[in-house]
Amino acid sequence: MAEKSRYNYRVEPQDVDFTLRATIPSLGGSILNTAGIDAHGKGFGVDALNADNHSWVLSRMAVEFDCQPTQYTDYTVATWISDYGRVLSTRNFTLTDAAGREFGRAVTQWAMIDLQSRSAIDLSWVGDAHADAIVDAAPPTDKPRKIRAVSPTATAEHRVVYSDIDFNRHVNTMRYIEMMLDMLPVDMLTQEAPVRLDIHFLKECRFGQTLTVGCELRGRSALFEISADGAAAAVRASIEWK
Amino acid sequence: MAEKSRYNYRVEPQDVDFTLRATIPSLGGSILNTAGIDAHGKGFGVDALNADNHSWVLSRMAVEFDCQPTQYTDYTVATWISDYGRVLSTRNFTLTDAAGREFGRAVTQWAMIDLQSRSAIDLSWVGDAHADAIVDAAPPTDKPRKIRAVSPTATAEHRVVYSDIDFNRHVNTMRYIEMMLDMLPVDMLTQEAPVRLDIHFLKECRFGQTLTVGCELRGRSALFEISADGAAAAVRASIEWK
Repeated sequence: MAEKSRYNYRVEPQDVDFTLRATIPSLGGSILNTAGIDAHGKGFGVDALNADNHSWVLSRMAVEFDCQPTQYTDYTVATWISDYGRVLSTRNFTLTDAAGREFGRAVTQWAMIDLQSRSAIDLSWVGDAHADAIVDAAPPTDKPRKIRAVSPTATAEHRVVYSDIDFNRHVNTMRYIEMMLDMLPVDMLTQEAPVRLDIHFLKECRFGQTLTVGCELRGRSALFEISADGAAAAVRASIEWK
Repeated sequence: MAEKSRYNYRVEPQDVDFTLRATIPSLGGSILNTAGIDAHGKGFGVDALNADNHSWVLSRMAVEFDCQPTQYTDYTVATWISDYGRVLSTRNFTLTDAAGREFGRAVTQWAMIDLQSRSAIDLSWVGDAHADAIVDAAPPTDKPRKIRAVSPTATAEHRVVYSDIDFNRHVNTMRYIEMMLDMLPVDMLTQEAPVRLDIHFLKECRFGQTLTVGCELRGRSALFEISADGAAAAVRASIEWK
């Protein structure tokens, strides 16, 4: 049975907004980067999978930040895999400051796809082959919530450009989150309050597509739905400030 | 007289495009981050200046990459200040891989502004106060070139949103560069050839403004001009593949 792995980060100037606190996408970026590094180090990273024409894709993600640390704050991201299902693998994270105080956590669920067919692969063999990578510790918070119905009260359009796409040739997770945040009032984004974000990915969005980002404000929460070229929802998300 | 300072980086999964090589904005981001960290460590960072309601702003930048390293490549950014003028301070950079081979370099010129009036401050006192921070080594390549006339053959519009702005409350340098790159054919961006980018900033662009990005393709080069709300040019740049 494995142990949690720990990686050190610091809130750099490019990670903060004008309140000098780390943005949600910068902390989310560190979380996803940690997933990549940890899988790479353990021999089942995207680079190893690419040899078989496979890749990991993020299916669902929930992140919670009790606060957003200020510029130059050192922090540690601990990560561990708690389970493999047939379709999804669950990777967990906690974020702690230098004093050891936990200020954030995340639960992510990943599918493995075939890069040719872009369809999901049965993960049972991964669970067998990498059983020693599983850590016997429960996820640090509720798993990502499904968001079923969004009734947008505002929409924005965005054509997918080179800077939006990642190594998997689809829109980068943090770019989706930025598109959503950018529809909210700045006062909402810069308030100092605990925040939880749930996002789930239903379809990939690709270079050259035109995205429609729908936003429904509900008090201190917002629901989002992104679709590409007028098709059914590709991404749904909710953000809630406590 | 000071020595060059060195900072270590690694090309992370979020830094690469689908060719699995580091993007120009990700390498450029490491360069600017190094400037911030080094100034911070030496006591004249943005955080120290903010106490007097001052800040550093980038005025001009030239970057050259002989190649763009692949995912998980370790590299070192060395930085040094070569001179202070009355208005601009010159900070230089070289990028080297683990074998010590230089694959990139940059020359940046910075002004100090008053955050209230947004106007430049005489830097002579900084040169006096921080003379011991100057390194007696010439810039590693030509200083940033002025780009005088751009005749756009294509234009794009972009409204400045929350994710575009940085701690100085104006559009982030790498976002400008992304806006420009996103107007070019993807084949041009992913070719394996040495590239040089020159950018200069004439005016700040702020939250809520609508930017017009003009692009003029000239063979293996491109010229750009960005203006806000129909006013005169705010940013001009050129990108040239050898």
